[in-house]
Amino acid sequence: MSTIEEVIQAIDPLDHASMDAAASRQQQLTKPPGSLGRLEALSIQLAGIQRTARPTTDRKRLILAAADHGVAASGVSSYPQDVTAQMLRNFLTGGAAVNVLARHAGVDLTIVDAGIAKPLDPSPQLNTLRFGPGTQNIATGPAMSRETAEATVRAGIALAQDAAADTDLLAVGEMGIANTTAAAAVVSCLSGRPPAETTGRGASRTDQQLSAKIAVVQQAIALNNPDQSDGLDVLRCVGGFEIGVLAGVMLGAAATRTPIILDGAITAASALIAQSIAPLSVDYMIAGHRSVERGHAVALRQLGLTPLLDLDLRLGEGSGAILALGLVDAAAACLSEMATFSEAGVADQTATP
Amino acid sequence: MSTIEEVIQAIDPLDHASMDAAASRQQQLTKPPGSLGRLEALSIQLAGIQRTARPTTDRKRLILAAADHGVAASGVSSYPQDVTAQMLRNFLTGGAAVNVLARHAGVDLTIVDAGIAKPLDPSPQLNTLRFGPGTQNIATGPAMSRETAEATVRAGIALAQDAAADTDLLAVGEMGIANTTAAAAVVSCLSGRPPAETTGRGASRTDQQLSAKIAVVQQAIALNNPDQSDGLDVLRCVGGFEIGVLAGVMLGAAATRTPIILDGAITAASALIAQSIAPLSVDYMIAGHRSVERGHAVALRQLGLTPLLDLDLRLGEGSGAILALGLVDAAAACLSEMATFSEAGVADQTATP
Repeated sequence: MSTIEEVIQAIDPLDHASMDAAASRQQQLTKPPGSLGRLEALSIQLAGIQRTARPTTDRKRLILAAADHGVAASGVSSYPQDVTAQMLRNFLTGGAAVNVLARHAGVDLTIVDAGIAKPLDPSPQLNTLRFGPGTQNIATGPAMSRETAEATVRAGIALAQDAAADTDLLAVGEMGIANTTAAAAVVSCLSGRPPAETTGRGASRTDQQLSAKIAVVQQAIALNNPDQSDGLDVLRCVGGFEIGVLAGVMLGAAATRTPIILDGAITAASALIAQSIAPLSVDYMIAGHRSVERGHAVALRQLGLTPLLDLDLRLGEGSGAILALGLVDAAAACLSEMATFSEAGVADQTATP
Repeated sequence: MSTIEEVIQAIDPLDHASMDAAASRQQQLTKPPGSLGRLEALSIQLAGIQRTARPTTDRKRLILAAADHGVAASGVSSYPQDVTAQMLRNFLTGGAAVNVLARHAGVDLTIVDAGIAKPLDPSPQLNTLRFGPGTQNIATGPAMSRETAEATVRAGIALAQDAAADTDLLAVGEMGIANTTAAAAVVSCLSGRPPAETTGRGASRTDQQLSAKIAVVQQAIALNNPDQSDGLDVLRCVGGFEIGVLAGVMLGAAATRTPIILDGAITAASALIAQSIAPLSVDYMIAGHRSVERGHAVALRQLGLTPLLDLDLRLGEGSGAILALGLVDAAAACLSEMATFSEAGVADQTATP
């Protein structure tokens, strides 16, 4: 298994020669220049990531990490903690939104127990990492030790490295009752914005519940006082096992030159941790969508990413990432498979008077 | 072939019993209520269209109509008119964006020559309707006769009726040098907004070209003075053969209870004509995206439709409709295929204290 330091060293800038070749090819395809809008810039990013003017996205995989959060004991969610395990079982039996979306989009799933409260029975479809039976309650102490924080990131790196052998395009998703609370705390620490701006409703139902949730995030940050220049310390203090694993997946994707599509607010928190550890990793990320969860927009701004979709989603699981994946696939396909003006015998605009 | 009047009579309101059943099912699926955002409302629309709480979108088809426009002689496009035929040939040989996107999305194509300037050689993939060698120049007279306007709409209705037998989800696309000029004139007439607000850049390159294009649209409306309460008269005066055919496709889709995804500004002009002929037909439409073409947003407001995507597209061909089709497919699939709380043994939020 690679060390985090080795992976940081392995992340290169995007390849500008491939990006230039892709941009030049876009000008020669049978369409008015620029008429595919944001798909053209996206295709050029894919070219830079994969080091080719004709990127491919045939083999798609979503890595979905689940974990529990001690802060659930502070009453921040309307759902009981058992729902994390119940939904993990639902992912394994194929009944959740992410399963339906993955089937229709031709996406393979890697499902990870990063540490739910009570383990499920073993299953060949389940990757059991388990960094504990849920984190400690961040309202009363750090989520985990420094060693565990680093271990979650290293495990995520290994997952991405394993996937890279047969994957052209990665996406991420998560499940964990109360994880919007942890994500809000991470986003506050790494964006410098106050919890009132980063804490969304999640699965809480009332304004009163939201106010209480903001207070919990404030308390978690004040009590644990993370070093805000150190993503691993933020993860240790106020993060979650799935948040750490997915940050590692993003670092591993960048190191293996695999484009990776983000989902909602929790995966954006992971992305901020990855950015803190290795800023270049953001060049390999694609923001799938903007959710209604308040901190998500804050995190995307901090990452400098513009989401592809804005559909008022707030489910997680990777649902928004898979919905966006069709657009990423389309961007690569148009660049790589369309005919050029000369191939098709079509008059080029630049050739007209 | 049905008359237009018969088709108007055949268009029913959406089925509210199916929509209520779909909304109730959405509440029972294993996700927080409303967490799939706009996909939930979309799935309920599909239920109302298909008269079932579990809609399906397995069999997808795009109807792409091409035609030429006499107004090209007024210099409104940077491309020579020959490009219409060249691109139609490109569609038949599979090199255009719409071909690549359709292959990746599993969409069958129906390609229609509604009247390009010089016909292509016959091909089994080409539906030859040909209402003339392009319209007359709307800057100097009406685009076509009343008989031809009605014939284009009837032909579109027949295309949709033929498709309905083996299609769950329709989409539309178009090609025609100078057709953004005709579309702008149609949108102005049917929205009441002036040409300066409905005329976009299309494939023109400079501000001067845009100003000249706006002047042509103003002249076309002033000279032909269409009855703005009569979509068929607007089509006769300032429309196009493909615009009429696609308006008919939309009416035929509504009459056969088939959801239909719109593409850009030209298909929105067709939709306004369909709306003028049969207002209920709009309930069967889905706005795939909002293009950068200026009149598109005006038309979508007049239709009362909110686009799914906003990706700065301005290609046409049905490209934006096919990109959105993955989202429509996902909306139907989640509603129809996800497990309910009781099926999956997941605790329902409403059941918690």
